[in-house]
Amino acid sequence: MAADSLPGGTTPTVVILGLGLIGGSLARALHGSGFSHRCIGWGHREASLQRGLELGVIDAYTLDLEEAVDAADILVIATPTLVAEQMLEQILPRLRQRGQPPVITDVASVKGSLQRTAEAVWGGMPPRLVLGHPIAGSERSGVEASDAQLFVNHRVILTPVEANEPAAVELVRAMWLSTGAEVVDMGVAEHDTVLAATSHLPHVLAYALVDALASGDASEDIFRFAAGGFRDFTRIASSDPVMWRDIAIANRSALLQAIDQFSDRLGQLRAAIDRGDGDSLLDTFDRAKTARDAFAALLASRTGS
Amino acid sequence: MAADSLPGGTTPTVVILGLGLIGGSLARALHGSGFSHRCIGWGHREASLQRGLELGVIDAYTLDLEEAVDAADILVIATPTLVAEQMLEQILPRLRQRGQPPVITDVASVKGSLQRTAEAVWGGMPPRLVLGHPIAGSERSGVEASDAQLFVNHRVILTPVEANEPAAVELVRAMWLSTGAEVVDMGVAEHDTVLAATSHLPHVLAYALVDALASGDASEDIFRFAAGGFRDFTRIASSDPVMWRDIAIANRSALLQAIDQFSDRLGQLRAAIDRGDGDSLLDTFDRAKTARDAFAALLASRTGS
Repeated sequence: MAADSLPGGTTPTVVILGLGLIGGSLARALHGSGFSHRCIGWGHREASLQRGLELGVIDAYTLDLEEAVDAADILVIATPTLVAEQMLEQILPRLRQRGQPPVITDVASVKGSLQRTAEAVWGGMPPRLVLGHPIAGSERSGVEASDAQLFVNHRVILTPVEANEPAAVELVRAMWLSTGAEVVDMGVAEHDTVLAATSHLPHVLAYALVDALASGDASEDIFRFAAGGFRDFTRIASSDPVMWRDIAIANRSALLQAIDQFSDRLGQLRAAIDRGDGDSLLDTFDRAKTARDAFAALLASRTGS
Repeated sequence: MAADSLPGGTTPTVVILGLGLIGGSLARALHGSGFSHRCIGWGHREASLQRGLELGVIDAYTLDLEEAVDAADILVIATPTLVAEQMLEQILPRLRQRGQPPVITDVASVKGSLQRTAEAVWGGMPPRLVLGHPIAGSERSGVEASDAQLFVNHRVILTPVEANEPAAVELVRAMWLSTGAEVVDMGVAEHDTVLAATSHLPHVLAYALVDALASGDASEDIFRFAAGGFRDFTRIASSDPVMWRDIAIANRSALLQAIDQFSDRLGQLRAAIDRGDGDSLLDTFDRAKTARDAFAALLASRTGS
């Protein structure tokens, strides 16, 4: 179902559950692209929704979840990971009663835990639930920080499964493409492994480093003499602790594997330092620099930054 | 000995051994401040020295180490850490023959290894050798990237010892103050511990992470889906491998201690993830975020960035 093939040629009504940075930015982008002329917000905090309305991010809002679901052609769960699981538990049972339930998607950082929740509630993967994950974010948060350009040239990973209706997958794909994102498909397990390595593990390492230094005896001195490299390295330790607790728990198995893989490598480096093995250190540092420089070049070519 | 108290009221001749980013930037800054009107470069690669002369970074150069040492009121060893040890081994024996040897300082990232080298060669710490470390750098390197403003509002750590002539310490301090740096004194062991924690350990972690990911099966995918947070976190893995091999070896003992302290904390986080202990994760992430935000505020207030 393409955006323009809805009954009467209208564009889909998109209901966003959770109007934060990601949900608000998606609404702005969908307005801007003409993909949807009706974005409705739902949440618990009326002040945020009211602000979203004033800013023109959404066209309407409701505090009533049933009303929100009923209004939707596309329902986007734009809450943190563990809340998204709870949303599915609340929403899916009600959809059994609807003839044509909305297409549902989400933006959470872990996909396996949501799939397991959906399967448990529905007894299999719901055909119109297409899990997704935009690889975009900002140090800022909340609807005030929302930005129609947030997804331009960023990747959105969809993890469709056999049970999905092809038309539902294509509608979610069309929605993200209209924001300027590049959409790629991936398996659920592969997504969680890749994100554990590139995002979840680095966050755990940054938190562990800052906490280890902050609780040492010389912590005051240590931070006084840290410089720009340390600032960049630890920037992600300023991320939202609740969001990252949820991700660490939701992606436990892939994250533990990534931690162990990293710890092995660190142990090898430690042993090389201990025995003064400069050749081994140089080999590793060289390989890492080559890989990191290639990654930086790739990222620069993709984002123009 | 203040800069203006040299015989005849002239400013000191500063000889820089190794005309890279740090040495070149120091020469530019000393010219700019009027601390020295005569900066002489020494090195192995004449092309770099010639370029430094053309750019006005230095006033003269020589390839002859004896000539360089003889010309110096202040000798700055601006080479990487392990080369700095070799320079001391070459220079110190010659100084015995000079009535008034130059004041010597350096810019290396590790101080204990240089102190041990100097003591072994001289039979104690030479009174006019004042070890130092400017906490400044850039992703760029070489004399072409040198910048008179590099040290402005950055810290320079000096690690004077009992055996030092007070006048020698004050001359090195005056030199760095003239570049716009903030100069602080610290013990040799304390310097190496603080730098192991804030700089050497993060580099080892970044190298270990990138190398672990690059050698996994899914490495291509992994880097394709990494985003901005990963770029910041791994930026320091693009640093010069030779320089970091040298630092890791020179600061072995403090670095091993920092790695072990970090590994303990990571092990605790791993255990909390494994048992699904959200409260413990949230405690750690919260503490780390608070410490990191405080550090970022401190750094911003210091650099105005």
